[in-house]
Amino acid sequence: MRAEIIAVGTELLLGQTLNTNSSCIARRLAELGISVYRHTTVGDNRERIVAALREALENNDLVITTGGLGPTVDDLTKECVAQLLSVDMVQDEEALVTLRSFFAKRNWTMSENNLRQSCFPRHSVILRNDNGTAPGCIVPAGGEKAFVLLPGPPFEMEAMFEGPVLGWLSEKIDAVIRSRSLHMCGIGESEMETRARDIIDTSDNPTVAPYAKRGECFLRITARAATADECDRLIDPVAKQIYERLGGFIYGENTTIEEALVSALKKKNMTLALAESCTGGMVASRIVNVSGASDVFLHSCVVYSNEAKIALLGVASQTLDTYGAVSEQTVIEMASGARKICNADIAAAISGVAGPGGGTEEKPVGLVHFAFDVRGRLYTERLLMPGDRESIRLRSCVFVMATLIRLLNEV
Amino acid sequence: MRAEIIAVGTELLLGQTLNTNSSCIARRLAELGISVYRHTTVGDNRERIVAALREALENNDLVITTGGLGPTVDDLTKECVAQLLSVDMVQDEEALVTLRSFFAKRNWTMSENNLRQSCFPRHSVILRNDNGTAPGCIVPAGGEKAFVLLPGPPFEMEAMFEGPVLGWLSEKIDAVIRSRSLHMCGIGESEMETRARDIIDTSDNPTVAPYAKRGECFLRITARAATADECDRLIDPVAKQIYERLGGFIYGENTTIEEALVSALKKKNMTLALAESCTGGMVASRIVNVSGASDVFLHSCVVYSNEAKIALLGVASQTLDTYGAVSEQTVIEMASGARKICNADIAAAISGVAGPGGGTEEKPVGLVHFAFDVRGRLYTERLLMPGDRESIRLRSCVFVMATLIRLLNEV
Repeated sequence: MRAEIIAVGTELLLGQTLNTNSSCIARRLAELGISVYRHTTVGDNRERIVAALREALENNDLVITTGGLGPTVDDLTKECVAQLLSVDMVQDEEALVTLRSFFAKRNWTMSENNLRQSCFPRHSVILRNDNGTAPGCIVPAGGEKAFVLLPGPPFEMEAMFEGPVLGWLSEKIDAVIRSRSLHMCGIGESEMETRARDIIDTSDNPTVAPYAKRGECFLRITARAATADECDRLIDPVAKQIYERLGGFIYGENTTIEEALVSALKKKNMTLALAESCTGGMVASRIVNVSGASDVFLHSCVVYSNEAKIALLGVASQTLDTYGAVSEQTVIEMASGARKICNADIAAAISGVAGPGGGTEEKPVGLVHFAFDVRGRLYTERLLMPGDRESIRLRSCVFVMATLIRLLNEV
Repeated sequence: MRAEIIAVGTELLLGQTLNTNSSCIARRLAELGISVYRHTTVGDNRERIVAALREALENNDLVITTGGLGPTVDDLTKECVAQLLSVDMVQDEEALVTLRSFFAKRNWTMSENNLRQSCFPRHSVILRNDNGTAPGCIVPAGGEKAFVLLPGPPFEMEAMFEGPVLGWLSEKIDAVIRSRSLHMCGIGESEMETRARDIIDTSDNPTVAPYAKRGECFLRITARAATADECDRLIDPVAKQIYERLGGFIYGENTTIEEALVSALKKKNMTLALAESCTGGMVASRIVNVSGASDVFLHSCVVYSNEAKIALLGVASQTLDTYGAVSEQTVIEMASGARKICNADIAAAISGVAGPGGGTEEKPVGLVHFAFDVRGRLYTERLLMPGDRESIRLRSCVFVMATLIRLLNEV
């Protein structure tokens, strides 16, 4: 089955409102194994909405729209679908009753415009909206084709999708879909792709799809079969093949790196302390976003000045003078100092040249030193990273967390 | 002039990455008075990219694409434009030199794939990318029509749009375009809009556009005229009018709140220390992203555990026992402790209940205590914020920085 998503709304077209609906629906459709061919955004303009609907219907089996179901004269989606399919608009009695009771409950007055919200293209299946006044609908569009019209407010749209739309889709697909996403760090996207090229290219069921984000990269394996077990049987050998080639870079599955780190700490019953210079609290900030991080995360000393490195972490001023703030010697003292403050089990320290200024021949922009202190045993790393300041900091974050996970697994 | 925006990338089509680029470009085009007709998102598929480009070119004067300029075989945008226009791909010597030096500096090996990043459709104007390896380009497409190809990473895309693309657009519309963005904190978007409603509605040249992001809101004044001076003459009286109504909330112009804070610190020659609990390093992380922050920012103690509050900041365990970690008394001791570590001029401390768990009747989710220590003078604030964990943390960040700016202005 092939689908297109159309977001309707001038506020989206002008960039006043960010369109999160298309992305949300696309993700769910992909998980169901329904190919999404295109997303389109159009304004509240009858001619252009009809044109977009027509093109989408020609190329797809399923066209999902969001927006344009409200009570104002600008809300045109249902009328445009009716026009395209040459059917008339019919009032639905049940929808009218629901609408009337919605207004009565709130002591609101219903206008003529509101009445339009109980009218739908003929032959529609009406989708109740428990979170707003605009019901959605499924409109048969010839053969197996159909339009699914959903409201624009994300909360209303999501509830309607997860409820009646998902039920209707499962029946249409008649299959189970499962995904396993292998999350990697320490390898670039193009290198990951090169190493898995043949697997990606030859995979059909399961499919293998690469993607990258914020210094991490991923291979997502998605299978479709009659049962979940059968899906797993299709996925497992492909996952095994990928682990054989890229296992050293995989830090977890179906999880964020910060969640994987917090789980690893909990599993080993170990506490973490950090000393951050160029990442400036970004590692802490991501860990703190994991609910329950407080059980294992003690503190991070964001030591942006040399004075702070000395005062908070006990780094020797001689070390800073001799080797500089961005050096193996300094990060070692930072990590050990951070670990000792509250007697943490494991500590990590990061110091680097994030740029754009401050780079030298010897210590160029992108140079980052890392040190890890696992109950007194020290490990260090030195990386030269590409990209801008933000990107260098992001990659450093991911690298620290991935290395911590690796070290925890070895404890 | 009529434009369409095409976002290219399977990760967007599958909903793995949220498409923020189309919205961002649409907003800027609207401000320039260029009508946006449609947004389209397609995957990394040659046939479908070409089809989307063809349709867009038929209906528009200007087609702006983002994404698909990377080094992998999936990155196809330039090749697809060349195919559609029946021109060949030509290597650009300057782009090649830049690319080689980028790799040489990092001691990386350049692959065949990377070489593709220095090839462009014949007759292209090449747009340098100062933030990544993928240059963009402007490709003439017959008559006054053109394709503008931009990279996918938002940071790279925005820098390229604001620089060379804006310059090129100004020439095309034969006018200079200037913007002044007034940045506010401490007022909601709808309240800001209400107070400036008449200005927004009646403004034509300059246009006044409201938007909001991450606890801040903005009014952007954009003028179009023959010269920059003439633009300024159009903008100034409107800005003055807005200052009269909303001046108390404006923390800066054309700047981020963290940049405004670093400037304010530099102006007063004062140093800053932080103690963060619920924000977990987020304030530090944003400040550190400002180049040159190291001159004024000493450290942040991200004290997520009570032990760390005691060990790093010298908070009395009795204070924590009596009043709890989220209390005025505790944040005062945190701020003073943080300030004294390196004898900073000003310090701020944040402690709150970010949720989703941990709320009580007395201390509900969203309650955040703030303390500020300006050379020994103490100020406190207590806010109850709406939204989820991420939103409470973001708003706390913005509030701390805006308050620091206000206190610095009063010194």
